[in-house]
Amino acid sequence: MKYVKELKWKPGMNVKELVDKLGSIGFQGVQLKRAADTVVDMKKVGAKVYFTFTSNMVTSGLRGLFAQIISLGLVDVIVTTVGGIEEDIMRAKGEKFIVGSFNPDDVELYEKGYNRVGNLCITTESYENFEDTAQSMIRKLYEKKKVWPTSELLKEIGLMLDDENSILYQAAKHNVPIFCPAITDGALGFHLFLFKQKHKDFMIDVVQDFANILFSSSQDEKKGVLCLGGGVSKHHAIFSCLLNGGADYAVYMTTASHTSGSMSGATTNEAKSWGKVRDDANIATVIGDVTITFPLMIFNVLERLNEEGLIHE
Amino acid sequence: MKYVKELKWKPGMNVKELVDKLGSIGFQGVQLKRAADTVVDMKKVGAKVYFTFTSNMVTSGLRGLFAQIISLGLVDVIVTTVGGIEEDIMRAKGEKFIVGSFNPDDVELYEKGYNRVGNLCITTESYENFEDTAQSMIRKLYEKKKVWPTSELLKEIGLMLDDENSILYQAAKHNVPIFCPAITDGALGFHLFLFKQKHKDFMIDVVQDFANILFSSSQDEKKGVLCLGGGVSKHHAIFSCLLNGGADYAVYMTTASHTSGSMSGATTNEAKSWGKVRDDANIATVIGDVTITFPLMIFNVLERLNEEGLIHE
Amino acid sequence: MKYVKELKWKPGMNVKELVDKLGSIGFQGVQLKRAADTVVDMKKVGAKVYFTFTSNMVTSGLRGLFAQIISLGLVDVIVTTVGGIEEDIMRAKGEKFIVGSFNPDDVELYEKGYNRVGNLCITTESYENFEDTAQSMIRKLYEKKKVWPTSELLKEIGLMLDDENSILYQAAKHNVPIFCPAITDGALGFHLFLFKQKHKDFMIDVVQDFANILFSSSQDEKKGVLCLGGGVSKHHAIFSCLLNGGADYAVYMTTASHTSGSMSGATTNEAKSWGKVRDDANIATVIGDVTITFPLMIFNVLERLNEEGLIHE
Amino acid sequence: MKYVKELKWKPGMNVKELVDKLGSIGFQGVQLKRAADTVVDMKKVGAKVYFTFTSNMVTSGLRGLFAQIISLGLVDVIVTTVGGIEEDIMRAKGEKFIVGSFNPDDVELYEKGYNRVGNLCITTESYENFEDTAQSMIRKLYEKKKVWPTSELLKEIGLMLDDENSILYQAAKHNVPIFCPAITDGALGFHLFLFKQKHKDFMIDVVQDFANILFSSSQDEKKGVLCLGGGVSKHHAIFSCLLNGGADYAVYMTTASHTSGSMSGATTNEAKSWGKVRDDANIATVIGDVTITFPLMIFNVLERLNEEGLIHE
Repeated sequence: MKYVKELKWKPGMNVKELVDKLGSIGFQGVQLKRAADTVVDMKKVGAKVYFTFTSNMVTSGLRGLFAQIISLGLVDVIVTTVGGIEEDIMRAKGEKFIVGSFNPDDVELYEKGYNRVGNLCITTESYENFEDTAQSMIRKLYEKKKVWPTSELLKEIGLMLDDENSILYQAAKHNVPIFCPAITDGALGFHLFLFKQKHKDFMIDVVQDFANILFSSSQDEKKGVLCLGGGVSKHHAIFSCLLNGGADYAVYMTTASHTSGSMSGATTNEAKSWGKVRDDANIATVIGDVTITFPLMIFNVLERLNEEGLIHE
Repeated sequence: MKYVKELKWKPGMNVKELVDKLGSIGFQGVQLKRAADTVVDMKKVGAKVYFTFTSNMVTSGLRGLFAQIISLGLVDVIVTTVGGIEEDIMRAKGEKFIVGSFNPDDVELYEKGYNRVGNLCITTESYENFEDTAQSMIRKLYEKKKVWPTSELLKEIGLMLDDENSILYQAAKHNVPIFCPAITDGALGFHLFLFKQKHKDFMIDVVQDFANILFSSSQDEKKGVLCLGGGVSKHHAIFSCLLNGGADYAVYMTTASHTSGSMSGATTNEAKSWGKVRDDANIATVIGDVTITFPLMIFNVLERLNEEGLIHE
Repeated sequence: MKYVKELKWKPGMNVKELVDKLGSIGFQGVQLKRAADTVVDMKKVGAKVYFTFTSNMVTSGLRGLFAQIISLGLVDVIVTTVGGIEEDIMRAKGEKFIVGSFNPDDVELYEKGYNRVGNLCITTESYENFEDTAQSMIRKLYEKKKVWPTSELLKEIGLMLDDENSILYQAAKHNVPIFCPAITDGALGFHLFLFKQKHKDFMIDVVQDFANILFSSSQDEKKGVLCLGGGVSKHHAIFSCLLNGGADYAVYMTTASHTSGSMSGATTNEAKSWGKVRDDANIATVIGDVTITFPLMIFNVLERLNEEGLIHE
Repeated sequence: MKYVKELKWKPGMNVKELVDKLGSIGFQGVQLKRAADTVVDMKKVGAKVYFTFTSNMVTSGLRGLFAQIISLGLVDVIVTTVGGIEEDIMRAKGEKFIVGSFNPDDVELYEKGYNRVGNLCITTESYENFEDTAQSMIRKLYEKKKVWPTSELLKEIGLMLDDENSILYQAAKHNVPIFCPAITDGALGFHLFLFKQKHKDFMIDVVQDFANILFSSSQDEKKGVLCLGGGVSKHHAIFSCLLNGGADYAVYMTTASHTSGSMSGATTNEAKSWGKVRDDANIATVIGDVTITFPLMIFNVLERLNEEGLIHE
């Protein structure tokens, strides 16, 4: 039997200790500690780890932390949406994102060329600069070959970047494939289209990429999913695991509720009914904004793995 | 100045009248009426209407209503995720979905072959039957041509169905294109992959389909978006409109909050900063489960358009 | 086994029929129908019905509907917060509430004397007029006796009003007690305080009122709770039922989630662990804004009870 | 102009540094840092600080931290609900709360005498023990005087306890009044009622206590509110400040959304329209479970105040 234990502040307390203590605090506190425990367990058994996130998280500045955990060998397969890929490239090329507020005058922002994402803004100029970058990258890709499965294209783009805070760069360097099932749903999609207007034989092969994610693990391997937010990214990772026998470990960190039957809010329990996670799986769901919950959870994990010599740089 | 007016029950009150009265009731009541007004306005000016929804809504049974509004000419372009397409086909082929609860024993469900989606279940048998259907459909498509933009493939599948409650059937019949930017993210993706294993020249051309959605409207046309839920479907529709000068009308019906900066929770105001909706756009956001809010809103719209002779069967 | 049945629009469909059909639609649709069924069941067995709501719902314009179901004999005991009582009195005295938006310029509103509640506003002038009303009412009460249990005070105020849309008026007329455990938490509290400054022997007896709610039902009676929103009102009703053996029926309609362990989000399942609802209780939780979900649900109930001659005017 | 700055893990990073860094991370990360800044500002100008929380937070184990910030002089006035007071006393008397899960078998829990609050449980035995404690305390109070304003009663109870982790104990010791506008809404209310059955002249004077909170600050003083969760506690604090000219600083930490017009979800902007916070007030709203967000925020505040010698033990 585990009991609630009152939390107290001590000067200089570090993040790991706070999260350890949250394990004896109710509601989402204890859920957060369980999530950390589940990720540590995944790593200790050598599970193949599927990591998913949505594009707004890249915009938020968690990008550097995502790149870091890739470089430290924490994750093996990534699934995300194209907005995050665009913004990773934009940041790698020096564009800056602005911290603002949730309730600005949006018409005024539009006139200033500020495009709002929650309490952040991306300038129209950054998107214009991205056009040149994207067209140049696509041209180089096309010179190599005409037909590209998405994850191979993203790896090649990663190799063109040079920024240790870049998700694509670190993933390419560490052979972590990035899957993006809706590659055309954003500015990059538009640039792919523009290029294809003049190069009809240029093709993105999304069906082949389904094979790639399917063969990224096997029935025999232990598998874990670590899903930040929901949507296509989350579904794609757990569906791929399902086809290979289901995940053994699952951590969901989200703001969505299960009450509307959406994928974004689907619980780790619901996944059991599908065999998406195994019936004896180690599972944890944490409700809250990942800009707060994810750093806490993963810092705790990194400290513990570091102590045991389980991360490498 | 508009004032709150107390709501009272009258025996036999119809849905249209209730929604009209909610226009004088605070919070989401008045938002619902504003959403109906905005959709009526879209139709009266002859705007091109982009309609988006997520797959769980198809599962829920709203499918018949979606098919009906397509057949009545309410919407011009559809964007959705592949799960909804699969389930539309499954239902058209006679599969049944089970009404259950949000808190069942999920391991027991798994053992019975019941896959849970919120408080609904789809049997594993339904998915097995779908395999035969899907392979047979893909074979016929392949015999026509080797390379398929997604929306053309979905139209062709619609023509193979014969169910007036089917979204794909009605869309095909009424020349309403269905876009699905993440076509491989589900069972259909798996079947496309299986087929491609033996037919290497079979290809889904997602980049060409980006051209198709881009050319589905022009800068000069009035445009409206009606987005149920969020994710890739919502983003794809409003991004396409943005590239053509932004939407003039926007209705968002969702459970997501704007506080995490996600696309699912992004408000109609946020869209203004991007030019995704025009600064003078007619906009409304309704927070709530669409299984309740959408029928109410669209019944009110249909009655009003019907009275004015603006819908055709 | 119950199956999903596609929803279709028919011209002139009434509210009852729509809600009946939502019983075969997933997610919150089916929950809404279950809530209606549960309330019908409560009434058929003659259960004592505890009805709770929060003050913003009175402001919204649901006030008239609440008054109507009291007059129709649907509920036996009411628990609410003082804001709703103030606004019921203000409306009975002719004050008007303004329909606005969720994102106004709040500093501008302040300067105009508009006090915002979501997308509604109450003028400062209305509060000023309320001061005279309140002081005059308290004086009359004081002339009758010095020490008032809250529910007796509220009944006496109800008898001073003359508005068929008033909750207090209808409750007083139909001998439905209104409990308000935090009677001082609002403008009325301030006016009680002002009066007491000059009349030290004036006293609100909240402990005696606990006896009143406790004796409002017995162990032997069937009991049902119908809770709109959460907070003190919800807790007070189910806690009172708990002390009398627990409720046999429970319907919760709320926007709050269970994930933070709050009373507002506490589920009907959680209530079972306390004996707050009996283990075999007929229960339903509906997630969504009550300005939409409550009219739908209760219209369905009223039509069904009306058909069976179970409501009286 | 402030820009997003990528977050990176460093071994041993302490909580203060993480929160500082979240100030350059989007969405709720930056909101959390703004909340910490606002609390630091309150303290630096010597504002009177109103601190509110709901009972589930006491249950969670944040109780020790609440007691600690009282002992460190961070807050001047407390408003809460009676459940938190009961659980503070129970813990001070040695009762233990159990850490469980959000989806247990609630009928089984009931049979074992475990009463669930989210993912925690309180045993029926703890409530039984509380009965003796409460009756004994009330008897001692009654021997002192017959009529008790709530906050005076709670101070007297605090003086009967001897536990440095107790909120009531530390508040009594440091002359921080605790207001509880709905004192009867819980087990304590039941015990007050039982006692009054035999001692008719025993009285809780809630109207007098409204005077006490009103006179806890003046028009001239700077005032700050720090509200965890919503409900009566939040409303009572900001309403009291409103009557004294409005708060100069406001921090809201909550899971509730503003879309239903409830007090729990009301934003700091909405409060401006009322004059509940001044138009130039320093304000921040953080969305998320306080078991995670509050320790992070307040640890950052405590470290900064400690560095400047602004907290005392």
